[in-house]
Amino acid sequence: MEFRIEAQDTRCEARAGVLVTAHGAVETPAFVAVATRGTVKALSVDDLREIGVQILIGNTYHLLLRPGPEVVAELGGLHRFSSWDGPWMTDSGGFQVFSLGAGMEHGVGKIASIFPGEEAPRPKGESIVRVDEEGAWVKSLLDGSWIRFTPEEVIRWERLFGADIILPLDECTSPFHDRDYTERAMERTHRWAERALRAFAETEGLGPNPKQALFGIVQGGAYEGLRRRSARYIGSLDFSGFAIGGSLGKSKEDMYRVLEWTIPELPPEKPRHLLGIGTVEDIVEAVKRGIDTFDCAAPTRMARNGALLCAEEEGFRLHIKAARYKKDERPIEEDCDCPTCRRYSRAFLHHLFRSGELSYFRLATIHNLRFMVRLMERIRAAIRAGSPLEIENLIG
Amino acid sequence: MEFRIEAQDTRCEARAGVLVTAHGAVETPAFVAVATRGTVKALSVDDLREIGVQILIGNTYHLLLRPGPEVVAELGGLHRFSSWDGPWMTDSGGFQVFSLGAGMEHGVGKIASIFPGEEAPRPKGESIVRVDEEGAWVKSLLDGSWIRFTPEEVIRWERLFGADIILPLDECTSPFHDRDYTERAMERTHRWAERALRAFAETEGLGPNPKQALFGIVQGGAYEGLRRRSARYIGSLDFSGFAIGGSLGKSKEDMYRVLEWTIPELPPEKPRHLLGIGTVEDIVEAVKRGIDTFDCAAPTRMARNGALLCAEEEGFRLHIKAARYKKDERPIEEDCDCPTCRRYSRAFLHHLFRSGELSYFRLATIHNLRFMVRLMERIRAAIRAGSPLEIENLIG
Repeated sequence: MEFRIEAQDTRCEARAGVLVTAHGAVETPAFVAVATRGTVKALSVDDLREIGVQILIGNTYHLLLRPGPEVVAELGGLHRFSSWDGPWMTDSGGFQVFSLGAGMEHGVGKIASIFPGEEAPRPKGESIVRVDEEGAWVKSLLDGSWIRFTPEEVIRWERLFGADIILPLDECTSPFHDRDYTERAMERTHRWAERALRAFAETEGLGPNPKQALFGIVQGGAYEGLRRRSARYIGSLDFSGFAIGGSLGKSKEDMYRVLEWTIPELPPEKPRHLLGIGTVEDIVEAVKRGIDTFDCAAPTRMARNGALLCAEEEGFRLHIKAARYKKDERPIEEDCDCPTCRRYSRAFLHHLFRSGELSYFRLATIHNLRFMVRLMERIRAAIRAGSPLEIENLIG
Repeated sequence: MEFRIEAQDTRCEARAGVLVTAHGAVETPAFVAVATRGTVKALSVDDLREIGVQILIGNTYHLLLRPGPEVVAELGGLHRFSSWDGPWMTDSGGFQVFSLGAGMEHGVGKIASIFPGEEAPRPKGESIVRVDEEGAWVKSLLDGSWIRFTPEEVIRWERLFGADIILPLDECTSPFHDRDYTERAMERTHRWAERALRAFAETEGLGPNPKQALFGIVQGGAYEGLRRRSARYIGSLDFSGFAIGGSLGKSKEDMYRVLEWTIPELPPEKPRHLLGIGTVEDIVEAVKRGIDTFDCAAPTRMARNGALLCAEEEGFRLHIKAARYKKDERPIEEDCDCPTCRRYSRAFLHHLFRSGELSYFRLATIHNLRFMVRLMERIRAAIRAGSPLEIENLIG
């Protein structure tokens, strides 16, 4: 894998470049579309090509449950199986160690959203994860059996899936873990990272893709000392790039600070991925702090829930269910070039959404993903042109 | 509306021709894709164009509930609202008078399926329909309110929707209605047909489409005398074409007999539509008996339920859920030219279906509809070439 930085913003840490994988190049900064089970929900690979998506990320936990790494390998790997022959990433299942574990008990995601007057959110359910030094036990959502995740097994599974960029098993901590627990989890993640690197070397040649690259994951929660230590340590290991994982604090400001502590400690010549983040504001702020790639389920999930990305609306979201769109003949966005906006009115999308029609989900997803792709195109162009990275210049 | 018969099979009643509507020509025999609420479930209009669909049928009952005829008219009619600017038909809601009424009480569809040893199927639920001379009261599935359907109101709604071919309110009878009830319902349907014709004349100029055509509907159940009387009577009225509705008996043989009684009584120069029928065998047999167009939800519904049309499988159905497809790298059909078969394996479709992925529904629907479109293409070519209409020559 090769990473070329071709332009560097002089006012901030933003850079534009090209990440060359075994299955094609990705212009960065880039949005990685989430294809948890091997498909972006509601779309086909022809849809993805048409709207300019460059790279997908699958999920080891979900693909392990179904159809399983052996089946995927036997069918030629993720690229051939899914028909997406462009670049693939796979997440390690580390996020599920969190979301089905502490995230469940603490009732939180990567960034806590706390309402005024609340100490902490309510639990969402019982943890179905047990972490120990060797790895993690995680319950199958399909049949309730306990599955053993270890750094070595995860690498073996990802070898069989054959994505171009793979991630090692890590333990994401919650915004409600204290410094002590966060530190212990971080140190364990560091030991897992070394084990993953060894396993990666020992499995060379396994699976359908001989040119995989392994990225390291930085942890440390929203604690400056821990983040700096983790970035320095992980950054010193022989990874092809780095991902920033785990808790990003209790607010957007916390998240930006985490990036400001982490990124200066990482080797500048290697690519940096921010896991699971993807609102318009967050992407722009993270690019300014030196992030090259992002993945996030929010744009596609929002689409399915009726929130369509729209530059002119508050929070950049148009809620298509609202009665005011019943007779609105305009496209979602006047200047959008996506197949949905070229063809359909808000009124018809409102009707499809209210009627629960399956065609809605695809049309909405196409628009939201195209919105993200265009945002990234404009971010890259701005960096290369030396124009300021201000939201007003980047969308609409 | 113009209908040109361009070829006539000499061994049977099959004919090939062109039905010219205000929004384009339809080569017949043709399959009309079902777009109940203004969209073929899971597809976009670009998908429909790509697979060669010629004409759609919407449903007055469902479009009345949402978004309503006034809204559709204000948005320029069904063509503009839905972005499908090719030919449209609308059914009258007469089928819902049956399916939510007697069909519910008798537990049947258009053709009864009775298991050996059974006298009659069990009820599916309580009727939410009351039929009287003036029309029918039908409960809204949205809010439980009673809606008044009359021949005049239905024509007014269909004027506002603006489809190219519209159907009058009729009362479909059940295969379990006796001769006496079937006769009374048929005579009422005849009176409704005359009222619909008057209402159609009186509403000229209403709505977005000044060139609508009204088809008459033949009833009479599976009783020879009634079917012949109904066909002669409806055939004598000033309709632009005819549809065959209502009960088609208790077996495929009953259905073929109904066609053999009905079609010779209809004016040969006008188009004939068979409502709600659409298996491969039934279409071929009905074409042989002189049917020009068909609509049926089965191919698209089957797709969503995992039954993919495949010439080589029993009943022409491949059940994609079956474990034997888990590692099957072939497309659904080797020689199919649809976007799904060109791109995806049975193994991946099996995975998508088992995972409940939204993208499955579209890919499966594309294949099944393309299968129907190709079947009709081959039927037309066979009629024009004078080759025999045998299933073996028409698919695979």
